[in-house]
Amino acid sequence: MRNEPIDLATAFGAFDQLWSPRIVTRVNDYDVRIAKVAGEHVWHAHDDTDEFFLVLDGELRIALRDGEGGAEREVLLRKGSVYVVPRGVRHRPSAPDGASILMFEPTGTSSVGDRHDPVPEHVDATTGHAL
Amino acid sequence: MRNEPIDLATAFGAFDQLWSPRIVTRVNDYDVRIAKVAGEHVWHAHDDTDEFFLVLDGELRIALRDGEGGAEREVLLRKGSVYVVPRGVRHRPSAPDGASILMFEPTGTSSVGDRHDPVPEHVDATTGHAL
Repeated sequence: MRNEPIDLATAFGAFDQLWSPRIVTRVNDYDVRIAKVAGEHVWHAHDDTDEFFLVLDGELRIALRDGEGGAEREVLLRKGSVYVVPRGVRHRPSAPDGASILMFEPTGTSSVGDRHDPVPEHVDATTGHAL
Repeated sequence: MRNEPIDLATAFGAFDQLWSPRIVTRVNDYDVRIAKVAGEHVWHAHDDTDEFFLVLDGELRIALRDGEGGAEREVLLRKGSVYVVPRGVRHRPSAPDGASILMFEPTGTSSVGDRHDPVPEHVDATTGHAL
């Protein structure tokens, strides 16, 4: 199959499930994943990898426990903002009004990390699905 | 310094140079780079890495020699499209009407690859600049 550009709007149109990343393409041993999100994800941490977020539409909030003694704070990513959660940092993404996001992370990275709170029904624990 | 979200519009507002990627953030040992581009880049190839492109504004064309016997073709990335140039493939980005792009590639990757045609004055041979 010829390697052709992928239109992200078309890719987002191909699925509806929330918090269920789709793998758009691969770069070496990394995935480029997209997800539709709304409401709260789950507190989790990736022990061995940073995680990159780009907000393509809407607003994403990421609660972080990266303060002194694990103090909690929240960052707000508006449309067109990027953010990297460093490896090991417990975080919980949320999007009260919904958002469309793009992520870069090593192939095989779990959406709920290596350590996590109990995973609620609406969160898909996955290493990403094909589009 | 606290790790805060970066607004890409603000980041693009901080420089004017064309074909001169700025490093927005790092993900493990990868850079997230942004660039303003217009006109033609140079034919080049990265021997050891794929290269990811996302078009944030405008249109990007990438000429490729990935056909049988190195036959040339061109892909068109409209705003909101992504594309990965596989390692080893000779390519030449261009943007007749200008574009703003985001790239994802290993830290240290040269903007003109490991093999390239003579680099014209308007192309910055760099591993990326700080914002």
